Amino acid sequence: MAKKNAFYAQSGGVTAVINASACGVIETARKHTTKIGKMYAGRNGIIGALTEELIDTSKESAKAIAALRHTPSGAFGSCRYKLKSVEENKREYQRLIEVFKAHNIGYFFYNGGGDSADTCYKVSQLSLQMGYPIQAIHIPKTVDNDLPVTDSCPGFGSVAKYVAVSIREAAFDVASMAKTSTKIFVLEVMGRHVGWIAAAGGLAAENAGDAPHIILFPEIEFDAAKFLEKVDKTVKKFGYCALVVSEGIRNKDGAFLAETGIQDVFGHAQLGGVAPVIAQLIQSKLNYKYHWAVADYLQRAARHIASKTDVEQAYAVGKAAVQFALKGKNAIMPIIVRKSDKPYKWTIGEADLIDVANVEKCMPRSFISKDGFHITARCRAYLAPLIKGEDYPPYKKGLPQYVTLKNVLLKKKLKTFELG
Amino acid sequence: MAKKNAFYAQSGGVTAVINASACGVIETARKHTTKIGKMYAGRNGIIGALTEELIDTSKESAKAIAALRHTPSGAFGSCRYKLKSVEENKREYQRLIEVFKAHNIGYFFYNGGGDSADTCYKVSQLSLQMGYPIQAIHIPKTVDNDLPVTDSCPGFGSVAKYVAVSIREAAFDVASMAKTSTKIFVLEVMGRHVGWIAAAGGLAAENAGDAPHIILFPEIEFDAAKFLEKVDKTVKKFGYCALVVSEGIRNKDGAFLAETGIQDVFGHAQLGGVAPVIAQLIQSKLNYKYHWAVADYLQRAARHIASKTDVEQAYAVGKAAVQFALKGKNAIMPIIVRKSDKPYKWTIGEADLIDVANVEKCMPRSFISKDGFHITARCRAYLAPLIKGEDYPPYKKGLPQYVTLKNVLLKKKLKTFELG
Repeated sequence: MAKKNAFYAQSGGVTAVINASACGVIETARKHTTKIGKMYAGRNGIIGALTEELIDTSKESAKAIAALRHTPSGAFGSCRYKLKSVEENKREYQRLIEVFKAHNIGYFFYNGGGDSADTCYKVSQLSLQMGYPIQAIHIPKTVDNDLPVTDSCPGFGSVAKYVAVSIREAAFDVASMAKTSTKIFVLEVMGRHVGWIAAAGGLAAENAGDAPHIILFPEIEFDAAKFLEKVDKTVKKFGYCALVVSEGIRNKDGAFLAETGIQDVFGHAQLGGVAPVIAQLIQSKLNYKYHWAVADYLQRAARHIASKTDVEQAYAVGKAAVQFALKGKNAIMPIIVRKSDKPYKWTIGEADLIDVANVEKCMPRSFISKDGFHITARCRAYLAPLIKGEDYPPYKKGLPQYVTLKNVLLKKKLKTFELG
Repeated sequence: MAKKNAFYAQSGGVTAVINASACGVIETARKHTTKIGKMYAGRNGIIGALTEELIDTSKESAKAIAALRHTPSGAFGSCRYKLKSVEENKREYQRLIEVFKAHNIGYFFYNGGGDSADTCYKVSQLSLQMGYPIQAIHIPKTVDNDLPVTDSCPGFGSVAKYVAVSIREAAFDVASMAKTSTKIFVLEVMGRHVGWIAAAGGLAAENAGDAPHIILFPEIEFDAAKFLEKVDKTVKKFGYCALVVSEGIRNKDGAFLAETGIQDVFGHAQLGGVAPVIAQLIQSKLNYKYHWAVADYLQRAARHIASKTDVEQAYAVGKAAVQFALKGKNAIMPIIVRKSDKPYKWTIGEADLIDVANVEKCMPRSFISKDGFHITARCRAYLAPLIKGEDYPPYKKGLPQYVTLKNVLLKKKLKTFELG
């Protein structure tokens, strides 16, 4: 096998642990310099490949690369840029392969979700047709936990832990205040289409009466009357009610509550954010004092409370991607394979990209309680191991020490390329 | 000194470390059983004293009391209930003293902010007049850091750390995404009247270009034109802009932006939450994609990322309160006295309650940069030590283990009392 350089890029919304995958990729590649030459990273994801903005990761010290393991965000920049189909925009795929060819790149590691798995697969296929074979390996990453085949997605475990910890803490607070003040607390979490993140909040409810008392899933049509009855019962029973609400909940017409709820209920427009919609609905109908929080990026960036399991898995899929490449594999994705729940055991397996690309893993209905407001024991058994363990970053002067890389760009060899 | 029982109550908005003060009070009292009999706690704060709902803390194990040190919220319940002036509602003060007398309570430990310091002072004065002297000691607590005399307030350091860590993490995320997606991130934090919490976000900006790039303080009148210019410059220079915004910012008419901003700018009503107001203003004028978060209770409940300094100080003021009481002191509050900034050294001092009650400590103008958008070096020197050190709670199955007490109520001896 002739020595080839490698390319790595981060795609889509970043996570608390996508850099741990980058760390796994780079550290592993550095151990195999007879087969893998330089590791280049795309500046701002796949755009960096198209525009030939390649970061030379060999300029980074071993210490800086090691620090990626505990640094949230995408150290090389990510992007929201979906390549069109090969038919619609073949020139972009061809450009990728030209750039790879110009820099003697034989390995393409793409770290992202469903869209990037699709791109990764297409690159591997087209490169064969174009007579410059590229080994394309996709590395799973998504807070939404919606990739198929793999048991879980790196990035999810940490946001899950953040949500479970946060709702537990806030609920303790509300419980203290409920006698004379706040009785309702609404935490809005991510998950536009799937309720995995909202479900994770349910882990905090270990015993009867524990918060969260109600979870609103995008999978369950929002029924205001039924919901308000449940809230009222909860407050009357426990003195307060703590809720985790997915940003993606919809009413019976399929419209997002975050976009239309306020117009429907109060007759005026609304800024986005479903938490205030739900909180005001409760206040207007039940007259309970409320507080609400929207975690937004805090939840997916919260490396300070990352799941140790998640960090280990993120690193492991990065490492495995390089190991698979060294074995000559192509068009695959390393996955997490669960061997057992209790004790939790997992290993790395592989999936063909054709089975991964553009398939969304939904939450099974059996993971949501019959009344639609909580998780089931089955869901808990699945989720619980994913938030296990703490993996604290180093601190200095009270603040976590995250690395910012030098990100030295390679000299360009090709002509300028216009995107889109 | 005849043996007397003691009463402890939590007041107002709770914090990540008010229970650490409770822990300091109870553990110290338990070491002096020859002088202090039972330690009773008010169920839901001072209301528990008025309604004679007294929790017998002797029913709690040493382990449970020790766990208070790492448990956020108010373990006995808090309340928002301000006693009126003695002239307006003497019967409530008299009732307090009657309840104390009925249960042989000679020590009153009141853990709260400015209002409760005032109540505490009045109880001590009135008890003398009524011939049943009570030693009343106030224990400082407030996330707002607005109590006078004391160098800082237990509760503030932890929310400060949460805000600084959170904006650092979210800003790393936004920086990754800025090329093709989000360029603006707005984090709304507490502080209706004073900007201490917003200022703490500034600690994350250690080097030029670091986030947060802009802080909006309640002390500085919001000037939309000047603000938008600053945002635009920041995005053009660094590629993105991360902001920490106090919930209490006001426009030139003195109105809260959270309440009126949207009406002013877009002509329709708004749900509360200044972050979406600011984010939409930026989007409408500069057309930058935004994300926003409202931390709300998460920030003051976040025991998982509490400041070690804050936890130690919260415990210390609780412990000192009991020690002062044992020395026969009355109408005072233990305070934090700063001995030096570098290295940070502090000790416990005492303040007369008459100097504390109803005085709000504002942030000096010299702590805010000339342009009004950031903190100064002086502010940083003051704030930095307060977030130092981590003090992680114990975890089990990935979740922090917070204690819920048994809270066994004492048998009532008096007639029912109507509040208000």
